[in-house]
Amino acid sequence: MARPDIDLVDIGTPNNLHAEIAIAAAAHGKHILCEKPLALDLEQARRMQAAAAKAGVVAMICHNYRFAPAVQFTRQLIAQGKLGRIYHIRAQYLQDWIMDPEFPLVWRLQKDVAGSGTHGDLSAHIIDLARFLVGEFESVTGLLHTFVEERPLDTSGEGAWGAQGQSGQKRGKVTVDDAAMFLARLEGGVLGVFEASRFAGGNRNGNRFEINGSKGSVRWDLENMNNLQVYLADDPAGLQGFRTINCTEGGVHPYAENWWPPAHIIGYEHTFVHLVGELMNGIAAGRSPHPNFEDGVRNQAVLEAVSQSSSSGQWVKVQAG
Amino acid sequence: MARPDIDLVDIGTPNNLHAEIAIAAAAHGKHILCEKPLALDLEQARRMQAAAAKAGVVAMICHNYRFAPAVQFTRQLIAQGKLGRIYHIRAQYLQDWIMDPEFPLVWRLQKDVAGSGTHGDLSAHIIDLARFLVGEFESVTGLLHTFVEERPLDTSGEGAWGAQGQSGQKRGKVTVDDAAMFLARLEGGVLGVFEASRFAGGNRNGNRFEINGSKGSVRWDLENMNNLQVYLADDPAGLQGFRTINCTEGGVHPYAENWWPPAHIIGYEHTFVHLVGELMNGIAAGRSPHPNFEDGVRNQAVLEAVSQSSSSGQWVKVQAG
Amino acid sequence: MARPDIDLVDIGTPNNLHAEIAIAAAAHGKHILCEKPLALDLEQARRMQAAAAKAGVVAMICHNYRFAPAVQFTRQLIAQGKLGRIYHIRAQYLQDWIMDPEFPLVWRLQKDVAGSGTHGDLSAHIIDLARFLVGEFESVTGLLHTFVEERPLDTSGEGAWGAQGQSGQKRGKVTVDDAAMFLARLEGGVLGVFEASRFAGGNRNGNRFEINGSKGSVRWDLENMNNLQVYLADDPAGLQGFRTINCTEGGVHPYAENWWPPAHIIGYEHTFVHLVGELMNGIAAGRSPHPNFEDGVRNQAVLEAVSQSSSSGQWVKVQAG
Amino acid sequence: MARPDIDLVDIGTPNNLHAEIAIAAAAHGKHILCEKPLALDLEQARRMQAAAAKAGVVAMICHNYRFAPAVQFTRQLIAQGKLGRIYHIRAQYLQDWIMDPEFPLVWRLQKDVAGSGTHGDLSAHIIDLARFLVGEFESVTGLLHTFVEERPLDTSGEGAWGAQGQSGQKRGKVTVDDAAMFLARLEGGVLGVFEASRFAGGNRNGNRFEINGSKGSVRWDLENMNNLQVYLADDPAGLQGFRTINCTEGGVHPYAENWWPPAHIIGYEHTFVHLVGELMNGIAAGRSPHPNFEDGVRNQAVLEAVSQSSSSGQWVKVQAG
Repeated sequence: MARPDIDLVDIGTPNNLHAEIAIAAAAHGKHILCEKPLALDLEQARRMQAAAAKAGVVAMICHNYRFAPAVQFTRQLIAQGKLGRIYHIRAQYLQDWIMDPEFPLVWRLQKDVAGSGTHGDLSAHIIDLARFLVGEFESVTGLLHTFVEERPLDTSGEGAWGAQGQSGQKRGKVTVDDAAMFLARLEGGVLGVFEASRFAGGNRNGNRFEINGSKGSVRWDLENMNNLQVYLADDPAGLQGFRTINCTEGGVHPYAENWWPPAHIIGYEHTFVHLVGELMNGIAAGRSPHPNFEDGVRNQAVLEAVSQSSSSGQWVKVQAG
Repeated sequence: MARPDIDLVDIGTPNNLHAEIAIAAAAHGKHILCEKPLALDLEQARRMQAAAAKAGVVAMICHNYRFAPAVQFTRQLIAQGKLGRIYHIRAQYLQDWIMDPEFPLVWRLQKDVAGSGTHGDLSAHIIDLARFLVGEFESVTGLLHTFVEERPLDTSGEGAWGAQGQSGQKRGKVTVDDAAMFLARLEGGVLGVFEASRFAGGNRNGNRFEINGSKGSVRWDLENMNNLQVYLADDPAGLQGFRTINCTEGGVHPYAENWWPPAHIIGYEHTFVHLVGELMNGIAAGRSPHPNFEDGVRNQAVLEAVSQSSSSGQWVKVQAG
Repeated sequence: MARPDIDLVDIGTPNNLHAEIAIAAAAHGKHILCEKPLALDLEQARRMQAAAAKAGVVAMICHNYRFAPAVQFTRQLIAQGKLGRIYHIRAQYLQDWIMDPEFPLVWRLQKDVAGSGTHGDLSAHIIDLARFLVGEFESVTGLLHTFVEERPLDTSGEGAWGAQGQSGQKRGKVTVDDAAMFLARLEGGVLGVFEASRFAGGNRNGNRFEINGSKGSVRWDLENMNNLQVYLADDPAGLQGFRTINCTEGGVHPYAENWWPPAHIIGYEHTFVHLVGELMNGIAAGRSPHPNFEDGVRNQAVLEAVSQSSSSGQWVKVQAG
Repeated sequence: MARPDIDLVDIGTPNNLHAEIAIAAAAHGKHILCEKPLALDLEQARRMQAAAAKAGVVAMICHNYRFAPAVQFTRQLIAQGKLGRIYHIRAQYLQDWIMDPEFPLVWRLQKDVAGSGTHGDLSAHIIDLARFLVGEFESVTGLLHTFVEERPLDTSGEGAWGAQGQSGQKRGKVTVDDAAMFLARLEGGVLGVFEASRFAGGNRNGNRFEINGSKGSVRWDLENMNNLQVYLADDPAGLQGFRTINCTEGGVHPYAENWWPPAHIIGYEHTFVHLVGELMNGIAAGRSPHPNFEDGVRNQAVLEAVSQSSSSGQWVKVQAG
C-alpha cells in the first residue's frame, strides 16, 4: 500500500478480506476495483464506501455483466422509451457446479469467509442488472436454502483460496445458501422475480433476464451473450415477434466499434475489458464510473433485505444506501 | 339436467357459475367436466367436490396442458427417477392480450364473475403442472397486482360472456389481478418460483417450466409444445447439454401413437382430445381420472393461499384439500 | 367409379397406381385429390392432367405444406414486395427413418412402384414450396444417390402397401435414391440449393427453407411449423435480426382465424384441413385450386430434370409443363 | 525480408500480393502465416507451397475457424467413430454486407486483386471445414453468380486497401462473384452441398455446417460459435434429439482449459489465438501444423474446380494437390 508506483488496487480476494484491503487502499490514496459482493454485510460495505469517498479515490465494483454490449444496448432502449413503462423483470442466475454432494467445502461455502453462498455470488449479479436496467429495489420477500448441509473438508492445501478444492474424509457444515429466490417491488411499480442457484443442473452459467414494458420486451442470456431478443409492440400486426439481434454492430451497439465486424462475436473477458476501460477513463477524469461503491452498497442492501426476509418470512424494505 | 339422454355435463361458463351447475349435475347423476379454476373460492370448490363424491359421478377439471405428450413424458422421467431428487421448479404463464389500457372490462376482469384475474386463469395452470410433475404445495408467499385499474365498460352486448368485448366510453374498476408472482415450498424440499401475467409483451401464450433434479433437468414451452428439452447429468463429459426432443414418437412418447409419424407435430386442441379420452375411459371404468375435482380443490387451495399471502405479506400454509 | 353417390376420389395409393385411378376418375366425372408425386414420370403426369382437363373436373395434388399458415404468410410477404427482389432460396427436406440397413425393402424403396425414392417423396415437397413462393424452375443440375443398395425383403404380408414393413432373411436390390441434391436457376434470376435425404440422422421431419431478398429474408422449419423467422432490412440499425413470429393470429396470418387464440398452435393435420377446405371451395366454384394437376406436372418436370442431370452430369432445362 | 530480427512474416494483404511476399519470405528463410485464399489460382498456390517446402520454413494458412473448440471437438467425435460412417455434409457461409448496390467497388470485388469474390473469401472457409472434418473433395459441380454487375468506384483514397471504401459517381464493372453454390462428392462416399453468398440478408456472419453420419449428427453456427448441436443415434428411444453443448469445458473441449470456467464463452479472436499457438509450437518443433500450405493448395484446387464447373456446366474432378 505504501509503494508510490502503485496507483490502483484490484481486490480479487475472498469476500471477508475486501473491506480491510479497500479501506487501507483508500487511506493510501489508491484507486480501487473490488470484486462483488462488496462486503460481508451492509455495515462493512458502507464503511468501504465512506473510506473511498473521504479519500476521493476512484472506486468501482466489478459487476462486469453490465458491460456486455447487449446489456448496455438494453439500457439505451429503456432510456429512450422504446420499451415504454416497465411492468416486469424476471432474472435468474443458474449454475450447477456444486451439485455433487462430495464436492468439498471450499471457501465459497463458508459464511465467515464468503458472507453468503449463491446469494452474494450470483444474486448480486442479477440485482446489479436489475438496478442498472430498471431501477432501485423498494422491498423484497425471499428465501435462502441449503440443499447439501455437510460436505467433505477441503484438503487442497490452499485453505480458503482453493477455487475448486479436493475432498478429504472429514466433513464440515455448509454455512451458506445453495439457492436464493425472491420477489421484489422496484421503483416505478415494477414487479421483479429473481432466482439464483448452484443446483440447477445443465445451467452452467445461466445468467438471464426478461423485461416487459408497455411498448416492448427484451430477453438476454449470458451463455449466448452477444444476442439480445427484442420484441416491439409497435411492429405491424402479423410481424410481431422477438428478434434475435447479434449486438456486434459498431456505431450502434455499445463497445462494438472496438472489436470485430458484425456477428464476429466477443466473449466473457471482453466485459471486463469494457469495465476496465471505464475505470481508466474514470481515473483520468477523476470520477468513479458506475458501478461504483455506492452501487456496491445499494446492492448489498438488497442482498441483506432478502436475507432478513428469509429469516422473518416477511417483506422487507430495502435501505436506501 | 333432468334429461335422461344426457350423461355428461361440460361446464365452460364463467367461473361464478361452475358451482351451481356442477352441484346440480351431480345431483342428477351426470358426469362432469369443469373448466378451471374449479370455483370462485376454496369453500365453493369443496362443496363441488363433496357433491360429486356423494353422487358417485365422474368429475374432472379441465387442466388440459397435463396432456401434452411432452408433459406426460416429463412425468414418466421423474417417476422413473431419471431426474433424481428434484430441487427446483420454476414456471411462468405469460400472456399479453390486455396490455392496451383501452381493452374493455370483460368478464374475466371482474372479480364477482371470474373470482380472480390472471391468477385463477393462468396461475391455476402452472400450479396444476407443478402438482402433476413435482408434488403438493406446502406453503407460499406471493403478490397479486393490477397495473391498469380502470377500463372502458364492455359494450359488446354479450354481458359477462364476451370473450373479447368492445369498448364503451364509460369506465369501470378492474377488480382482479393483472399479474401474480409467488414463491413456494413443495413436498420433498422442492423450491418453486411461479409467475403469471397478462402484461408480458411478446409472450402470446408463454406457459413454461423448468425442473432441476440431482440427475437431470427438463424445460418446456407451450408455444412449441411438441418439444421437450432434457438434460441428463450422466451423459459423458463433453457431451452434456439440453437435448431438444420432439415428443412425437409412437410407443415412446405418451399419446403419440395415436397421431402422426415422428416430428409431424400436434397442436393445442390435441391436449383436450387426450383429456377427453381419459374422461371417456374413466366413465367406462367408473372412476374419476386425474385431474379430478380433488385436484381442483387442491389447486384452489394454492390459489387461495397466494391471495391470502398477497394481503398479509406473510408465508401461508397451503390447506391439504 | 361408376357409383353416382361418389363425387370425389382421393388417391392415396402407391405412386404407380395414381395415373390409372385418376384417369378413370376423370372419365367418370369425379373430382380428384391425388397424393404427390403426381405420377411415375412426366409423360404419365401429363396424361393425368389432360384427362382431368378434358373432363372438366376439379383436380388437386396434395402438397399440404403450402397450407401451413407460416408458408401462406411468406407468400403474402413476397407478393407484397416485403422481401424485395429474391436472390436465394435454400431448402432441405431431411428425414432419417431408413438409416438402419436392416430396414426392409418396402414399396417406397422400389422404383417400379414408387417411381423414385427420397426424390419423389421429399424433393417434390420442397420443389412445390419453391414454386409456390419464388417461381418456376428454369434449369437444374443434381445428383441422386443410394447409400444402402440391398435390403431385407419386406415380409409384412402387405406387399407394396406396408408402410413400415418387417424384415425377412432374403435380400433385394434398392432401386431408388436415398438422397437427392440439386442446384437450380429459377425465374427472375433466383438461385436455388435443394437437398432431400432419408439419411440425415436426427432430422425426423426437417422440411426447411430460407429465402433471401433485397429487402428481407424468411426461414421456416416444419418441425416447428407455426413459427416463421422474418428479417427486414428496413428495420432500424441496431434492431435488425430475425424475428420469431408465431403465425397464429386470426385476421393476419392465413387460416389462423379458423383455429385458436394466438400462440395456441396447430399441427400437421391442419395443413390437410386447409387444403381440403380449398378443394371444397374449388368444387363449389367449379375450378381447380392450386396446387392442381398443372402444378403436379410442373413439379414432375423438375423432378425429371434432376434425374436426367444425375445421369448426364449436365445442367438440364426444365420443361415448361 | 533481409532483416535478421524478423523470423515470421504474416501476410494479410489483398490476395494478389500473397505469392510474391510468401516466395520472398521463404527465400529469406522466414516462417510464414498467410491469409486465405492462398493465391489467385492453383498454379500460384503450388509455387508458394514449393517455395516454402524448398526453404524448409514453417508455412501455415490462416483458416482460423478450424480452431473454434466446437469444430475441434467435432473432429474428435468423427475420429473416434462417434458419428459412424459419414453420409452428408451441408455447409453455408452467408453474409450480407454488399447487398446495397451503391456499396463501392472495393478491392474484394475486383478479380485482378482478389482472384474471386465470395468464392475465395467464404467458400474457402467452408471447404476448409469440410476437408478438416470429413475428408478430401473428389469432384464438384457448381455455379458462381454476380447479382450486381456495376458499382460506384471506390474513392476512399486507399486504393486496393480500403476495407469498406466510399462511393464515387463513376461506376465500374464488378469482376467477381457475389454468390457461389456447389455440390460435391467427397472421399468415402460423402455427399456435400455448399453455398456462399454476400446477398443473404440477415446473415451477418452465417458460417454453418451440419454433418450426418450413421451413428450421429452435428450442427454448428459461427454466430453462436461456442455451441455445438450433437445428435447420437444410440441415445435411448424417446430421449433422442440434438443436444446443445457449450464447448467450454476444460479437459474435455479442445483449448477450453486455457480460458474461462464452463459457459463463460470465448469469441472470434480466440480462434486466431489458438491458430497462432499452433504456429508457435510448429516453429519450435520445426514442422508446419495444419492448415499448412498443402492445405492451401488443396483448398485452391477445390475453388478452381468449382470455377471451371461454373463455366463448363459439368462436374469437374478436383486435382489432388
